[in-house]
Amino acid sequence: MRATLMHKAHDVTVENVPDAAIRQPTDALIRVTRACICGSDLWPYNDLPETPGGQPMGHEAIGIVEDVGSEVQHIRRGQLVIMPFGYSDGSCPICQEGIQTGCPNGGFFGSPDVGGAQAEALRIPWADGTLYPIDVGPDDALMPALLTLSDVMGTGHHAALTARVRPGAVAAVVGDGAVGLCAVIAAKRLGAEQIIIMGRHESRLALARDFGATDVVKERGQEAVERVRELTGGFGAHSVLECVGSGQAMDTALGIARPGGAVGRVGVPHYAPIDGTGTFFRNITVAGGPAPTRAYIDELLPEVMDGRIEPGRVFDRTVDLDGVPEGYRAMNEREALKVLVTP
Amino acid sequence: MRATLMHKAHDVTVENVPDAAIRQPTDALIRVTRACICGSDLWPYNDLPETPGGQPMGHEAIGIVEDVGSEVQHIRRGQLVIMPFGYSDGSCPICQEGIQTGCPNGGFFGSPDVGGAQAEALRIPWADGTLYPIDVGPDDALMPALLTLSDVMGTGHHAALTARVRPGAVAAVVGDGAVGLCAVIAAKRLGAEQIIIMGRHESRLALARDFGATDVVKERGQEAVERVRELTGGFGAHSVLECVGSGQAMDTALGIARPGGAVGRVGVPHYAPIDGTGTFFRNITVAGGPAPTRAYIDELLPEVMDGRIEPGRVFDRTVDLDGVPEGYRAMNEREALKVLVTP
Repeated sequence: MRATLMHKAHDVTVENVPDAAIRQPTDALIRVTRACICGSDLWPYNDLPETPGGQPMGHEAIGIVEDVGSEVQHIRRGQLVIMPFGYSDGSCPICQEGIQTGCPNGGFFGSPDVGGAQAEALRIPWADGTLYPIDVGPDDALMPALLTLSDVMGTGHHAALTARVRPGAVAAVVGDGAVGLCAVIAAKRLGAEQIIIMGRHESRLALARDFGATDVVKERGQEAVERVRELTGGFGAHSVLECVGSGQAMDTALGIARPGGAVGRVGVPHYAPIDGTGTFFRNITVAGGPAPTRAYIDELLPEVMDGRIEPGRVFDRTVDLDGVPEGYRAMNEREALKVLVTP
Repeated sequence: MRATLMHKAHDVTVENVPDAAIRQPTDALIRVTRACICGSDLWPYNDLPETPGGQPMGHEAIGIVEDVGSEVQHIRRGQLVIMPFGYSDGSCPICQEGIQTGCPNGGFFGSPDVGGAQAEALRIPWADGTLYPIDVGPDDALMPALLTLSDVMGTGHHAALTARVRPGAVAAVVGDGAVGLCAVIAAKRLGAEQIIIMGRHESRLALARDFGATDVVKERGQEAVERVRELTGGFGAHSVLECVGSGQAMDTALGIARPGGAVGRVGVPHYAPIDGTGTFFRNITVAGGPAPTRAYIDELLPEVMDGRIEPGRVFDRTVDLDGVPEGYRAMNEREALKVLVTP
């Protein structure tokens, strides 16, 4: 089968690899019908060292179940399923508590062991715990929106929940990538009254406004902090949704949280340890992590299905598998916001 | 009047100082009827550099209002009041949101500007926002318990709230000082099912059991982490109440939180910046700070008054003002758990 491998920074290829296959009785095998490129894939795209054999890429997918192992009970052949970016057994206390990305038997797609989703097919560990069947056709017009439940929409929702967005809250979203834009959707549906989007790409900021952002801050660093303070009566935001993961983004996030506020971080951390003294004296909560998107599908799916939320609008380009390397380039150069892949 | 000053580590004296007096029209003046020594006072007791003029000590008090400024509206002469360890205007958005310790016009007692509570009298900024009148006599048997609402009981409650203790939760309390013991009370009343107290002083651990602790962990460091994992099915605690502030305590607190869990920290931080990557991948929330004890009196006072909670039991020694230096020594050497002062 064909699959995407990253060999080192800026070196992405689509190659013939051994077919994905069931290994464990709890596995399923899916044929990927939709995948995409994630903002987090741009971290290795810029800093992956030489990796012999290549790193399988892609962790977001919708697919059709082609086969299931002998112990799979609920997932059946022929079902269309959402594949969250992490796999999880679904039965341990951590999964039962809704933190599937902390499952002691879990892990993440886009790794040598399980392969990546920017491919024709994929082995799914713990199929019953991991996959979420959906009752639509594989070419439904909602497919882009449904695909976001694999990662970016659920991740934006996680940022909003862990930043404790509540009705009437002042929320600030750091980053105007696909996750940041989904975080705006999430903050809006949780009732934030003021939603400040922080970024500098006009087309993305326009989409953020469509999604519910009330204010735009294009400044960075200390200027950004001061601008947010101005917009919030001098106090800062109750809820800061950190959707980048860089040191500057995290510094800004901590700087714009008001006393008693919370930073919900979902950007993969590329920053130094967090100041524990300033955050203490300002009673700032620092929360977040890899979003348990599997847990959030129940809540978000109905709103996707009836069009109340439209996270599929973050996709602005579609490629087939051969177009994946060009998709990386386009996203990395900010020509594309988020690239959909139809293998 | 007489007041306690700390000149450098291990050098505490009670001296004649200028009388406390009203300076601002929003001030009140109280005569201190009960004060105490705080575990946090032991940090400067061990590391305060030479401080010319001395640092006024004490931030917990109950007192009688002797005078009020011309703009004070709700606090009246003759009232018995609880003085939270921080002062706050009570009217800004941050105070209205219940984060009085983040009030932009606020600050903390035990500072050169406002003086300390281990003294005969004290100036209270923002009397209306700061003080909480109580309707008991100044020698009521509940006085020790009421005094804990100034700091330690409210601080334990803050640890429990910020660690998100919920009915059925597994809670772990790091530290068996007065705050840690109050944190046990707080975790119990919020419905924790398992409460692990971590400390090594037999008499304190016995009190912790009386307050609701179900398990005791005397180990430290990695051994403590492993012991807590054993006691929690291998997963760790949902809620960790960090009541010390040392590097070892914080490392332990982070180590024993389960994926998706929260650390509510109330020990004044004496540790390095907090790892932002491990906490991210485990979805650990780090929260807490100086407790807005003013906000918590409404909720806790009725339970103190009817004896449902007995935080006054943390006091095991009483001294007059002259006995304060000896009180510091006794607390520092762990001969006394918490020392009550009757000026």
